[in-house]
Amino acid sequence: MSVIAREIHLNSRPTGKIEPQNFVLVERPLPAIAPGQVLVRNLFMSVDPYMRGRMNEAESYIEPFQIGAVLEGTAVGEVIESTDSRFSVGDAVAHFAGWRDHALLDGDDHVTPLDATHVPIQAFLGALGLPGHAAYYGLVHIAKPQAGETIFVSSAAGAVGSLVAQIAKLKGCRVIGSVGSEAKAEWLRDELGVDVAINYNAEPDLEAALRRAAPEGIDIYFDNVGGSHLKAAIAVAKDFARFPLCGMVTQYNGESEGPSNIYAVIQKSLLLQGFVGINHLDIWEEFTHEMIKWIAEGQIKTRETIVNGLENAPDALIGLFAGDNIGKMLVRLG
Amino acid sequence: MSVIAREIHLNSRPTGKIEPQNFVLVERPLPAIAPGQVLVRNLFMSVDPYMRGRMNEAESYIEPFQIGAVLEGTAVGEVIESTDSRFSVGDAVAHFAGWRDHALLDGDDHVTPLDATHVPIQAFLGALGLPGHAAYYGLVHIAKPQAGETIFVSSAAGAVGSLVAQIAKLKGCRVIGSVGSEAKAEWLRDELGVDVAINYNAEPDLEAALRRAAPEGIDIYFDNVGGSHLKAAIAVAKDFARFPLCGMVTQYNGESEGPSNIYAVIQKSLLLQGFVGINHLDIWEEFTHEMIKWIAEGQIKTRETIVNGLENAPDALIGLFAGDNIGKMLVRLG
Repeated sequence: MSVIAREIHLNSRPTGKIEPQNFVLVERPLPAIAPGQVLVRNLFMSVDPYMRGRMNEAESYIEPFQIGAVLEGTAVGEVIESTDSRFSVGDAVAHFAGWRDHALLDGDDHVTPLDATHVPIQAFLGALGLPGHAAYYGLVHIAKPQAGETIFVSSAAGAVGSLVAQIAKLKGCRVIGSVGSEAKAEWLRDELGVDVAINYNAEPDLEAALRRAAPEGIDIYFDNVGGSHLKAAIAVAKDFARFPLCGMVTQYNGESEGPSNIYAVIQKSLLLQGFVGINHLDIWEEFTHEMIKWIAEGQIKTRETIVNGLENAPDALIGLFAGDNIGKMLVRLG
Repeated sequence: MSVIAREIHLNSRPTGKIEPQNFVLVERPLPAIAPGQVLVRNLFMSVDPYMRGRMNEAESYIEPFQIGAVLEGTAVGEVIESTDSRFSVGDAVAHFAGWRDHALLDGDDHVTPLDATHVPIQAFLGALGLPGHAAYYGLVHIAKPQAGETIFVSSAAGAVGSLVAQIAKLKGCRVIGSVGSEAKAEWLRDELGVDVAINYNAEPDLEAALRRAAPEGIDIYFDNVGGSHLKAAIAVAKDFARFPLCGMVTQYNGESEGPSNIYAVIQKSLLLQGFVGINHLDIWEEFTHEMIKWIAEGQIKTRETIVNGLENAPDALIGLFAGDNIGKMLVRLG
């Protein structure tokens, strides 16, 4: 099968905010399939905050994207040709070769078969994928929530945050979520059962708003944004509060400000634990087992914001940082 | 017995650095001893960085000193009168009523009998007291050092830091200590066996100096100072490094700057754990057992900087922040 792949390449590194000209769409004929390979037609690709970091030159926990090379990210698709006996045409798979409509992959290169008979295939990029895993690991394994505790989660209408909020409710916590719009706040309150939704764009003083929402203080802060959110959470934390640090969206565009009240981390005996989900894949089975059950029981609701067409993937990533999404931001490639 | 106690009272709250006029020496006749009390002649009092925080009005993990009232802190002394059957004249005791030459105390008010037959009584304010306990708890119970690991400790010639450095050596670690003078650096290298002593006052770039000392990165940072030390430690940390946060001297005088590279806490999966020793007194027996053994075996060396006379106690505290001490800063009251 001779296939022309359409791919998004990194054209230049952003300085500060991402711009459309940092990307370029390239058409490239794929080589003929070799033994032990699978050719995948991608159906959905994931757009995630961590991708901003990979656009920088600086080293991070994951190597930077290369200028002139195709971008990467999780994607799900359908096998359309296979010389790897483990995969057949028509199989649903997940892999890391997003940002392209077709991917020719070694079967050994993290190609994972999916059972998409009971859930839509794109769920494996959200609640059943890395965002769900990060929410589950950070909340359940780091924060260890107890019934009756109060938790604050930022980006609470995002892919990770909306799952953290719901798992915390399942664990019997009082949940305060922060979001950037009234529409998101309504979704949290009306659909997800979040106790207090703070629209930080409507609050002149986030710390005061958090203090009103949690007069006794918070036991857990699940950080997705850093910056003033982290500072407010430290200020309103109870003694011995636990902070799983999952993301710091405010830092990805090059802004840099540490919390000026960091001494309170000692005064209040706080635990700040940074983590990267891919280092904790040993709990994947446990996570999947729990999450599938919760989704089947209707206890976890998922929502997606879908952008159509590979050519619009850069706009989807830019939109992610503008807060355009409610729930998981996806690009449909089919 | 009619006793006139000499006491140091808080005269005013400092704005920024502590000044001599923030203190006043007051002579006060003590009331006659009541049933269940002990009258203690203090021999040594402790001067500790955390006292700076108590001079502020703001709430902290421990309540602020009150203007016009006697200051507090750990002290050791000798019982000179007792109506509590548990204490006899001549007994050595530790308590929290420092900053005075005589203290009339309820026997129930944290008065602890000491066995000072084998160690000098002031050891119970240093290696066998709260500084030793903080060093032990933070290093052994939070950082959990493994042989072969590299640890960075700030204020490494201080009461806590010098013990952290030595316990880490006992655990088989490579130890890098930071200090503010060449004399302190020499003590660390020549007497305590520290592998690399960085004199930060002689280094234009602390992070570069730390990177030279630990080209592979650090596994543990024991923080006593915060500020640029914490930032450098985050920058040079290996993935999964552990940071017991014990003190932030740079913050006590009202400066406030969070580490601008805090996002690396996520990228490197760092653990930052603030702690206050008094919350972990459950390990006191274990700590005492280990520390007495190490001191007796000559594996832990202690050093003191002693200021004579209650009237000089304010200068001793001011001097502590100027780095005047090597080892434990004490005031001799006897």
